[in-house]
Amino acid sequence: MRYRQVGMMDNCEWCSLSEEDRRFLVCESAAWSVFLSDEQDYIGRCILVLKRHCSSLPELTDDEWSELRELVCKMEAALKAVFGAAVCNWSCLMNSFYKESAPDPHLHIHVRPRYDHPVTLGGNTYCDGEFGHHYALHKSAAIPDSDREEVFARLKERLSR
Amino acid sequence: MRYRQVGMMDNCEWCSLSEEDRRFLVCESAAWSVFLSDEQDYIGRCILVLKRHCSSLPELTDDEWSELRELVCKMEAALKAVFGAAVCNWSCLMNSFYKESAPDPHLHIHVRPRYDHPVTLGGNTYCDGEFGHHYALHKSAAIPDSDREEVFARLKERLSR
Repeated sequence: MRYRQVGMMDNCEWCSLSEEDRRFLVCESAAWSVFLSDEQDYIGRCILVLKRHCSSLPELTDDEWSELRELVCKMEAALKAVFGAAVCNWSCLMNSFYKESAPDPHLHIHVRPRYDHPVTLGGNTYCDGEFGHHYALHKSAAIPDSDREEVFARLKERLSR
Repeated sequence: MRYRQVGMMDNCEWCSLSEEDRRFLVCESAAWSVFLSDEQDYIGRCILVLKRHCSSLPELTDDEWSELRELVCKMEAALKAVFGAAVCNWSCLMNSFYKESAPDPHLHIHVRPRYDHPVTLGGNTYCDGEFGHHYALHKSAAIPDSDREEVFARLKERLSR
């Protein structure tokens, strides 16, 4: 059993992040890393990733649950202050792991800031056309690298205060 | 300010639930009520509603955060034991409140159990055709009253142990 667990964790992309993968780390705690998401369908969208391999919320330790609360507070405050998010959409899903025949999810939580106004970055304007409704599942999530860098820099600066 | 808050809470549907609304209460803690959702697009879908008017996760008290953890554990265990859910999708969104000109959300959290097998109730079979993917946003959510009663009874019985 131990051997199997080690083997599966070796295959977990969240357990073996490269320096490049960690490039967009906006903040961290002892137990969690927070990355700017590759998908910027909602400007400032981030992902909270547990540093150890663990498959579900009920398996979190006391400290991990407590740090999660601190990060929820910190991220909501930062996304509201930096980009003027009106509300944050939080979700813990893990569905994609269940495409595998032997699912072995790595706990992570998405936060999508939602906007009642356009967000402007480097001359580009990003609109939350679904504001007041569920986040879109198939919205364009690509933004120019320079805009991504600006989102990252502004968020990281705020979170490092 | 106090007057305004009281006024808005009076208009909050979650602050003024009728006995009929509370008919499908599956369990509760000091701070939270858990109801079987009207929407049964995923069999056993429930909604955790904070008993006091509060608009976001960062505003939860220590006790409310702690009880939320206990309910997450309890609900995941029950949905897995009773219906064989493979994973639970958790989300805290509150988007619909932001359709209003003066949004005043009441904190609630959705849990959608996800299934890698059909669930049979009263001769009807319910499939999670999107298993391994994000939950569907516009799936048929109506089930016969007798099936709803069975879901409620089975879940409540398990949660009362």
